[in-house]
Amino acid sequence: MSEVREKAALAKQAAGIMNRLTTNQKNEALLEMAHALIRHQDSIIEANRIDIERGRANGTSESLLDRLTLTSARVEDIAEGLRQVVRLSDPVGITLESFERPNGLRVDKISVPLGVIGMIYEARPNVTVDAAGLCLKTGNSVVLRGGSAALESNRRIVEVLRGALASTSMPAEALQLIEDPSRASVDEMLKLNGLLDVVIPRGGASLIRNVVENATVPVIETGAGICHTYLDESAQPAMASDIAFNAKVQRPSVCNSMETLLVHEAFAERHLRELADRFLRANVELRGCERTRAIIPEANEVTETDYATEYNDYIMNIHIVSGIDEAMQHIGKYGTMHSECIVTENQEHADQFMQQIDAAAVYHNASTRFTDGFEFGYGAEIGISTQKLHARGPMGLPALTSTKFRIYGSGQIRG
Amino acid sequence: MSEVREKAALAKQAAGIMNRLTTNQKNEALLEMAHALIRHQDSIIEANRIDIERGRANGTSESLLDRLTLTSARVEDIAEGLRQVVRLSDPVGITLESFERPNGLRVDKISVPLGVIGMIYEARPNVTVDAAGLCLKTGNSVVLRGGSAALESNRRIVEVLRGALASTSMPAEALQLIEDPSRASVDEMLKLNGLLDVVIPRGGASLIRNVVENATVPVIETGAGICHTYLDESAQPAMASDIAFNAKVQRPSVCNSMETLLVHEAFAERHLRELADRFLRANVELRGCERTRAIIPEANEVTETDYATEYNDYIMNIHIVSGIDEAMQHIGKYGTMHSECIVTENQEHADQFMQQIDAAAVYHNASTRFTDGFEFGYGAEIGISTQKLHARGPMGLPALTSTKFRIYGSGQIRG
Repeated sequence: MSEVREKAALAKQAAGIMNRLTTNQKNEALLEMAHALIRHQDSIIEANRIDIERGRANGTSESLLDRLTLTSARVEDIAEGLRQVVRLSDPVGITLESFERPNGLRVDKISVPLGVIGMIYEARPNVTVDAAGLCLKTGNSVVLRGGSAALESNRRIVEVLRGALASTSMPAEALQLIEDPSRASVDEMLKLNGLLDVVIPRGGASLIRNVVENATVPVIETGAGICHTYLDESAQPAMASDIAFNAKVQRPSVCNSMETLLVHEAFAERHLRELADRFLRANVELRGCERTRAIIPEANEVTETDYATEYNDYIMNIHIVSGIDEAMQHIGKYGTMHSECIVTENQEHADQFMQQIDAAAVYHNASTRFTDGFEFGYGAEIGISTQKLHARGPMGLPALTSTKFRIYGSGQIRG
Repeated sequence: MSEVREKAALAKQAAGIMNRLTTNQKNEALLEMAHALIRHQDSIIEANRIDIERGRANGTSESLLDRLTLTSARVEDIAEGLRQVVRLSDPVGITLESFERPNGLRVDKISVPLGVIGMIYEARPNVTVDAAGLCLKTGNSVVLRGGSAALESNRRIVEVLRGALASTSMPAEALQLIEDPSRASVDEMLKLNGLLDVVIPRGGASLIRNVVENATVPVIETGAGICHTYLDESAQPAMASDIAFNAKVQRPSVCNSMETLLVHEAFAERHLRELADRFLRANVELRGCERTRAIIPEANEVTETDYATEYNDYIMNIHIVSGIDEAMQHIGKYGTMHSECIVTENQEHADQFMQQIDAAAVYHNASTRFTDGFEFGYGAEIGISTQKLHARGPMGLPALTSTKFRIYGSGQIRG
């Protein structure tokens, strides 16, 4: 049996125990895991050093190496993340509906764990702990397949976490790490119907595309974010500038940052020069449509491909539009249904935008950067769903549950 | 552009209008559709006759032809189904959450239509109307791909329904029928990411397997039902017999009927002979394990394949087990997570079964035949989900919606 199938089967077996644990038992296990990370931080940091050295030898960029690096402070942060998950309320075992039918049947609809969750993700080893914490807290087993760049770190982290579970009621087999770094192990996970109940990809566009295109297991698509900010004619100039600047520059590497700024032609006439200067001073590369370049000669020419690209970088497109309809059409064509914003003082336009734009989160006069579980007050999140089934937007703990009907009778049969 | 892509694109365009219709507008459209079916029943029945004649010439079985046949009474029933959907409450536009963040952002979570739903189904033309009614009532566009056996009926029905919409606020383009009867049109639908928001297959196991294995669009898996009834040692004999008999015989062709009867060895010793006679009198073919055949010599030998088969017919397996653990193991191995039942007077065993069996619906002392939207009081259903994401079990109208966050600010940016 392959590593993937064997570990998924062990995880599935453990799921039968996981779904019976009490909230206290699960929290105790998570706290044990947090302790163990701190206690074993030296060996974790040492394993991480092997990843970093290999990465440097392979020519990995320093910014990526930085995201990969574990320090004592970062391990503390990661352990604190687990403690935060402990404080979140347990979404499992809740009676969502309960009713009695005229024939005397009692029907209860109960929240239950999903079962076995497959996580496929890239680089950063903190995702290993975050995902483990969120999945186990919700009574699920989890099969982790992290990126090969963090393999030694992930291996040691999972060893430590599983070791921590030995003294708890939670079965260590509920937490599995696939160590095969080849693409084949991902492909195998994607077809494990009957063993994995869902696969959640977290990473760049090509990782997510591969999962969506090849999985036969149900998928929760996350994170692809081509987000727009539309500055309407009546937008307050200072507010418009702050929101657009924040959406692009505050953290360009994340999915809810802005890739394309849409500007009403009249607003552009009056304010685009000043706004563009602010971006240029922050070293943002501008790519503009023809009308933009007439006002901002420094902007490079934008292409169709640019409009459809998630830069995750200090690059942005600017497109001047004739009004809200053209702006909404552009978003409908290029958006990934993640986060979209209109800045306007025109209530009718705001209503139209909030109603008609088809996205997980639509904003009136606020930065798209707020699409985030913590910012919504939901706590840690396993990802931001950009699909419409099951969960949409920031996924709190309830997104890691399913439901089950329990029907209690006294001999009822159907007539 | 292919028929499939063209019609899906029209449906998607119409979705932008659909999601703005009021409940009244949608209900008026559905009532118009019901009227039109009655008004045009002659031409519908005539079109249906072509399907029946072609089917008979092709050697289609009489029982399938019967399911395919439309009569005046059946058209009345179908129209009445639409009127029932009108009476169901509209799940769209409901504020599911609303809160204000410390920074003053107001966050509303609103139920919205899914967008464009692809339905892939077989034979019976009533599904065409049912699916149209449920999808349109929830503000979705729908692309129907029915079986070729009902093509003429479906074509005329959809023509009538679209005609009815002309005098309403609902765009006729929201309702599309794919007329290409080849497998290629199904395959194309399964890959229409960006145009279809979900595909719902309804039909036999091979249709569903094809969809699950080949779709890159999100899928709601429905209907595969290998359901078990377990008669525990302490089961009341009369109740056990009634429940098992009802689960198999009341309507064997549906997904929530029983395929395998699991019997505690002590119960089998005392009651299996009598129970088996009841099934034999109803012309049910019995396939039994060795221990069963020692008691019921009339039973044929059961195979591994039989345990994994959804007969949808007057055939059933009988397997004698040593107790509840073996019964639950068997269900875990062969069940499709649809509906599972325990008949017992032992409360501890009942609790164990209800807690541990991983299925959409678990029953204590009642027939699995109750897994059904009408029986739960939810009204008409688009299918019974056998997956854990999004919806599980009978899918009421809310299963045809998604959600959207609307965030209202006054210039908030992220720090």
